[in-house]
Amino acid sequence: MKIVESVPNFSDGRNKGVIDAIIGEAEKFKKVWILDRSSDEDHNRSVITLAGEPEDVISALFSMTRKATELIDLTKHSGEHPRMGATDVVPLVPITNITTEECVELSKKLGKRIGDELGIPVYLYEDSATSSNRKNLSKVRKGEFENFSSKIKEPEWKPDFGPDDIHPTAGVIAVGCREFLVAFNVNLGTNSIDVANKIAKAIRNVSGGFKFVKALGFELEKRGIVQVSMNMTNYRKSTIFRVFEVIKNEADRFGVPIVGSEVVGMIPLEAITDVFDYYIKLEKFSQNQVIEYKLMQLIAGSDASDS
Amino acid sequence: MKIVESVPNFSDGRNKGVIDAIIGEAEKFKKVWILDRSSDEDHNRSVITLAGEPEDVISALFSMTRKATELIDLTKHSGEHPRMGATDVVPLVPITNITTEECVELSKKLGKRIGDELGIPVYLYEDSATSSNRKNLSKVRKGEFENFSSKIKEPEWKPDFGPDDIHPTAGVIAVGCREFLVAFNVNLGTNSIDVANKIAKAIRNVSGGFKFVKALGFELEKRGIVQVSMNMTNYRKSTIFRVFEVIKNEADRFGVPIVGSEVVGMIPLEAITDVFDYYIKLEKFSQNQVIEYKLMQLIAGSDASDS
Repeated sequence: MKIVESVPNFSDGRNKGVIDAIIGEAEKFKKVWILDRSSDEDHNRSVITLAGEPEDVISALFSMTRKATELIDLTKHSGEHPRMGATDVVPLVPITNITTEECVELSKKLGKRIGDELGIPVYLYEDSATSSNRKNLSKVRKGEFENFSSKIKEPEWKPDFGPDDIHPTAGVIAVGCREFLVAFNVNLGTNSIDVANKIAKAIRNVSGGFKFVKALGFELEKRGIVQVSMNMTNYRKSTIFRVFEVIKNEADRFGVPIVGSEVVGMIPLEAITDVFDYYIKLEKFSQNQVIEYKLMQLIAGSDASDS
Repeated sequence: MKIVESVPNFSDGRNKGVIDAIIGEAEKFKKVWILDRSSDEDHNRSVITLAGEPEDVISALFSMTRKATELIDLTKHSGEHPRMGATDVVPLVPITNITTEECVELSKKLGKRIGDELGIPVYLYEDSATSSNRKNLSKVRKGEFENFSSKIKEPEWKPDFGPDDIHPTAGVIAVGCREFLVAFNVNLGTNSIDVANKIAKAIRNVSGGFKFVKALGFELEKRGIVQVSMNMTNYRKSTIFRVFEVIKNEADRFGVPIVGSEVVGMIPLEAITDVFDYYIKLEKFSQNQVIEYKLMQLIAGSDASDS
């Protein structure tokens, strides 16, 4: 089975019933599983994590968006997090047996359906973007719901799908394919924030480091140490082991040891087997050799025969 | 969901219909999945790999044993592989969310049922053994089917379950819990078999090395290099990374590089995350953070709600 993940963001973090109803739409699909949900009252925003078979995921996301359009009215919305739609952003993330290209096609299929059937303008972003200024979500979202009825009239911001005017209550939506984001932090055996900042600078894209690494130095005051905190936006191309080894070398230069690390939240199996593969020098290895991975495929497959 | 694996061995490697019928018994159970099957005509023996929810796995193994008892007649059996039963040996292997102790209990439950309901004597072996001379399967099997009707009369070889005489056509069966066996080979950049043998000797239990490592040196003639070939019989206690690091140190001593490695066949996720954890110095990590692992649990869980 191919697996795609999605992390749709909805502009309601205060009404549990609304989010339950939106999740209920996803639960109608046999090959879609809810991995996580979180709502933030101050942001007034909810983030659902789901994964499953690509066609079912797309159908589930469409139904969730339709339900959010019914239940969320942006003209009455306030919250700290920037937003431009009731369903604000729908990222699609390739997890297993699926390429980025296939995932981009899925995002276009979903975007077109939302535009055509729900009458909501859709912008393709990240890997799905049709022009370079639409890659970055914050650029697309700039102006937010309140200013989008004028922004949408600019030729540069003509939507990729749907009408040329915002939906009166649901605004506009960004849909796009992006890589899985791994949140990875490395702890250093020093209290010098200067060392953490220098290492962060050495490895992050913006200052000359790895293309798909964002990094900052932080103090962990309680422990009296510092941390290099990273968002790795493409673990396939800027790999965990390569970044880790550079951090180790840089820390060595300051006579500082690495004392620990952490993966925050979820991580795809491939990001783990890449590290496994690298350090023990595997000549060939397939995820199909992992019992739990093979079981997942078999269980999902046997499920199919029931339907 | 708890997951236990089993690799039952049946004394027929020549009649596909017989093995199909035995596997058919396992397929009747909702939470049992067949991972692999292989039959060897010379050995006249088939090995089935299955995994799933513990109670369903035990029920499936009982049904498979019953079917093998109907279809396989050891009085007419010949083959190169030593054997003492139509169903020869049924190992249970803890994979996820299950302890060795729980697995031992399962093996006793299965053994008792086979003894009581099928009238076949059962010996508990490996971690389930009730005396030290029953731990090793080859010791239990010694004498094979042909000599077991006298062996079984010795007080030392009174069965753990079932009658005190062999089943006329199905013989006797060994049932037991053992750890997952990881087959792991490390390739060295030299053609000196002497170096491979010295390293194998350094790491294997029998000559003073790691308790749960069996190792031999081999020549890979085509490639002009040598290999340390290992069976790791408890990857939790004699870990892959620790053994690998010792091999690296020993090879260094001879000025020989490690040029590659391979995992032969299946491997549990935990053996991989242990290596991941070690090299990047994770402070805490849970398999529940692995998307595919969590999906497997969710899919297996949603399956349950159907039944």
